Amino acid sequence: MSARMKLGAFLWATGHHIAAWRHPKTHVTAGIDIDHYIALARTAEAAKFDMIFCEDAAGLREADVGIASQTSRSIGFEPISLLSALAVQTSRIGLVSTASTSYNEPYGLARTFLSLDHLSGGRAGWNLVTSASPIEAANFGATGLKPHADRYERAREFAEVVTGLWHGKVSGHVGQSFSVRDPLDLPPSPQGAPVMVQAGASDVGRDLAARTADVVFTAAQTFEEAKAFYDDLKGRMAAHGREPDDIKIMPGVAPVVAETEAEAREKFEELQELIPDDVGVALLSSYLSISDLWRYPIDGPLPELPESEGMKSRQALVVEQSRRDGLNIRQLARHFAGARGHWRIVGTATQVADELQARFEGGAADGFNVMPAYFPGELDAFATLVVPELQRRGLFRMEYEGTTLRAHLGLKRPS
Amino acid sequence: MSARMKLGAFLWATGHHIAAWRHPKTHVTAGIDIDHYIALARTAEAAKFDMIFCEDAAGLREADVGIASQTSRSIGFEPISLLSALAVQTSRIGLVSTASTSYNEPYGLARTFLSLDHLSGGRAGWNLVTSASPIEAANFGATGLKPHADRYERAREFAEVVTGLWHGKVSGHVGQSFSVRDPLDLPPSPQGAPVMVQAGASDVGRDLAARTADVVFTAAQTFEEAKAFYDDLKGRMAAHGREPDDIKIMPGVAPVVAETEAEAREKFEELQELIPDDVGVALLSSYLSISDLWRYPIDGPLPELPESEGMKSRQALVVEQSRRDGLNIRQLARHFAGARGHWRIVGTATQVADELQARFEGGAADGFNVMPAYFPGELDAFATLVVPELQRRGLFRMEYEGTTLRAHLGLKRPS
Repeated sequence: MSARMKLGAFLWATGHHIAAWRHPKTHVTAGIDIDHYIALARTAEAAKFDMIFCEDAAGLREADVGIASQTSRSIGFEPISLLSALAVQTSRIGLVSTASTSYNEPYGLARTFLSLDHLSGGRAGWNLVTSASPIEAANFGATGLKPHADRYERAREFAEVVTGLWHGKVSGHVGQSFSVRDPLDLPPSPQGAPVMVQAGASDVGRDLAARTADVVFTAAQTFEEAKAFYDDLKGRMAAHGREPDDIKIMPGVAPVVAETEAEAREKFEELQELIPDDVGVALLSSYLSISDLWRYPIDGPLPELPESEGMKSRQALVVEQSRRDGLNIRQLARHFAGARGHWRIVGTATQVADELQARFEGGAADGFNVMPAYFPGELDAFATLVVPELQRRGLFRMEYEGTTLRAHLGLKRPS
Repeated sequence: MSARMKLGAFLWATGHHIAAWRHPKTHVTAGIDIDHYIALARTAEAAKFDMIFCEDAAGLREADVGIASQTSRSIGFEPISLLSALAVQTSRIGLVSTASTSYNEPYGLARTFLSLDHLSGGRAGWNLVTSASPIEAANFGATGLKPHADRYERAREFAEVVTGLWHGKVSGHVGQSFSVRDPLDLPPSPQGAPVMVQAGASDVGRDLAARTADVVFTAAQTFEEAKAFYDDLKGRMAAHGREPDDIKIMPGVAPVVAETEAEAREKFEELQELIPDDVGVALLSSYLSISDLWRYPIDGPLPELPESEGMKSRQALVVEQSRRDGLNIRQLARHFAGARGHWRIVGTATQVADELQARFEGGAADGFNVMPAYFPGELDAFATLVVPELQRRGLFRMEYEGTTLRAHLGLKRPS
């Protein structure tokens, strides 16, 4: 594979490790500190990352307010306002924000992302989510989460309207969920259209991605899982008249890196020790869309799980891991809470680069969405230790060659 | 009156004059040029304006795409993304954006504005509009504009939910239009809460303002109109348990200023000459919410107008002026199109300052929302000619005394 790997910097308040907010080298209000984010964005840009990535949810990240306040992202900026501010404090790096198809309307969303795209000179991307959390639903008057299939049907039409608006199609859209008459009051994007990102891993989610996405973020613990997902999704492209290379698959990776392996392990253990049991269990419960995990003995096995309308594919991933490694609830909670279900690598720059290279060259990833354990420390460590190692190996760019996110990612400009 | 007057800089692509885009000193793409907006924001901040103000509409500004493309704001940024970018390029000036209660949900809107408020260190304001335009309605699946009363009832509940969320009320809201469970994932604002702005001038609009607004923008041509509105609104405050000074009334003013009166008149006439008849008539039609004005002779009088669910109070204003000054359709269209129904002053800095001072000291205004005819020229002229004159007279600040928008406006910090 001659193409270079793609790298995203997933920014998240104090850090991706659930206990990052308790780490002595972070500050609790990092999530609403614009100078903190500007510094992170500049670090990522200096390291030539393809993009900054922000998640989003219109609600607390945990059902329990007490638990929510004890996580690494208990407070944080709304991502469009954040990325718009970062757009004028950076010049090259891509700016990708999550936004929901369930709690927005396509006209407003298309307009906002195209506006960010013009603000940034063609560096915007939209990560489409259907919002699987009942916490968000309760803030939008809904009495419960809509079924998975209904959310995806709305998302399919939503994406169709948004891309139509981005491509300057003037004729009105009248569909099942939406009716939109006007074109946008913005000219086409400097990069043709903002980049479309998705993260849904269910069957219907993969089909939507194969139809519309430019980038897919995933969670995969093992090489085999990552490879299976990669091959499956690339294999779906032809059915939608697209080339396999038209979509870039970027699994999340949660590295803890240091000059020596011992030092890296020590850093990681220091974080793991900071996780309170109740927070770990609550986070795992929320991720699994079950509410009574705390009733089970924390030293015992994961109970049988009910069918859920939440994130089906994620649930399967956790269950699989619990069985494979024989982890009890506390161990699973800590393991999971430490990486949020993503792939964890603890080691030296050489070890981290070896693992990334193996997945990249083994055809299991086009790049990675990097989820540093705490900020700025672990982003700095990745930028100063791992990136130069990847560059030495010819796996990552030395300089930006283009000015738009589409150019960084090597994506075709939409016609 | 010992308080100083308040000044807003209403930013609008190439300028407020409808033909600004044809002026030799503007560029057509100013609406999506972030460097243009950064320069304007810095000019306004250097001149110690209280705030920048942005309008918004989720749709074209004119029903006819051909007409829309011939106006001074045919393209432009979505205002939250714009103001978030300006937040990190300025340090003191307030940042007020319009957003609709008809095409948003209160949880998302409250979160976005509070995020902007944190980004800017307490400088954000929300201009609540109910969206009277059928053009916008058609982009949100609506078959027609909702009746005025229904829009305002939704707006009332919307504002209640938003301010509740801003004030950190955790208990859920369950009402007629909205149900919201969570608090926001943001701490309270650095200024207590973002500033609430309104512009509705109908009876129900005034009541909503007296109940919830910190600032009201209005359109008033004459001193008498301005004074009547001012006294009426201040008189409504007591019924809501508020002091008259808890609300700042800032009529729009569209000045054209130069070193000499002759020069100012020449600048204005140059702009008026650039207005095509069809654009002037179309703009007037849209403002009056009627569609067939073009059928009437352009040299004849304004016809009888049908009752409209659009902006009732604005319609009355135009009709009143047409009768008072005996203007035919072309004259009214040009007159109106030149100032968009706002108060026009053409003259020297002394003349402009005299007029502003008369309304301010006569108890008809607490300040003004300045609508420069074209950018940057007329904002520069106001900043370098009129502001120093107001400062010499002791009517306007020499320096910012506080760091938040609430402090600039002399508003109480909400408890």
